[in-house]
Amino acid sequence: MGVVRRFAGGTGFHRSDGKAGPLRWDGVAVEPYAPDVPSGTRQVLIGPAESAPNFAVRYFEVPPGRPATLDSHAHDHGVVVLQGRGRVRLGDEEHAIGFGDVIYVSPHEPHAFEAEGAEPLGFLCVVPARR
Amino acid sequence: MGVVRRFAGGTGFHRSDGKAGPLRWDGVAVEPYAPDVPSGTRQVLIGPAESAPNFAVRYFEVPPGRPATLDSHAHDHGVVVLQGRGRVRLGDEEHAIGFGDVIYVSPHEPHAFEAEGAEPLGFLCVVPARR
Repeated sequence: MGVVRRFAGGTGFHRSDGKAGPLRWDGVAVEPYAPDVPSGTRQVLIGPAESAPNFAVRYFEVPPGRPATLDSHAHDHGVVVLQGRGRVRLGDEEHAIGFGDVIYVSPHEPHAFEAEGAEPLGFLCVVPARR
Repeated sequence: MGVVRRFAGGTGFHRSDGKAGPLRWDGVAVEPYAPDVPSGTRQVLIGPAESAPNFAVRYFEVPPGRPATLDSHAHDHGVVVLQGRGRVRLGDEEHAIGFGDVIYVSPHEPHAFEAEGAEPLGFLCVVPARR
């Protein structure tokens, strides 16, 4: 259907493909999870391409079986789980997570996400635009 | 279950109640949609209570039958639809929306969200912390 966007780098939207399974969006590239993490995917839903000056919204998928590794960043993260089940580590703690759960990760807080079961764990992740 | 949070105003999470129907979160108040819009609800998932310095993540529910009214703000919005079906107006345009659709609303862009069908339309809305 193509990305419906009236302004280059402005208002518009990415339509979800509406299929069961991994979430994909029209006009959004499926990238590696991170430069040093080949397994899993990252999709930038709102960010530099939309000229969003304040924040970015990304969607990450963690495949089943990928071991959790703690990350820590100078910026904070706002996470909302959309698909699958898994576990989040926050420093020394670990919690089961699933659809709708909201995790706030403060700056410099060690954190890791892990899938549980056969499905990937999929979550939105909001970060500041400048990081 | 209570809000699991190790630091006052920091890292932690709000657990979704995991039930079908309107999304609710442990430790998150269900507020009116807006001061001047009594019908519909607003839940601040990440914001001042988490001392989030850069962005806020809110969840809005628009009840069926509420007429769409165009809003416009100096700040931008990142929207992800989680429940129900509806329509978004962006200036003079209107588009059908449902689960997973992503809408980016630039600063000062007139916009309105409307539910379609019997269910409320529920969506995440990301905004900058300073607005």
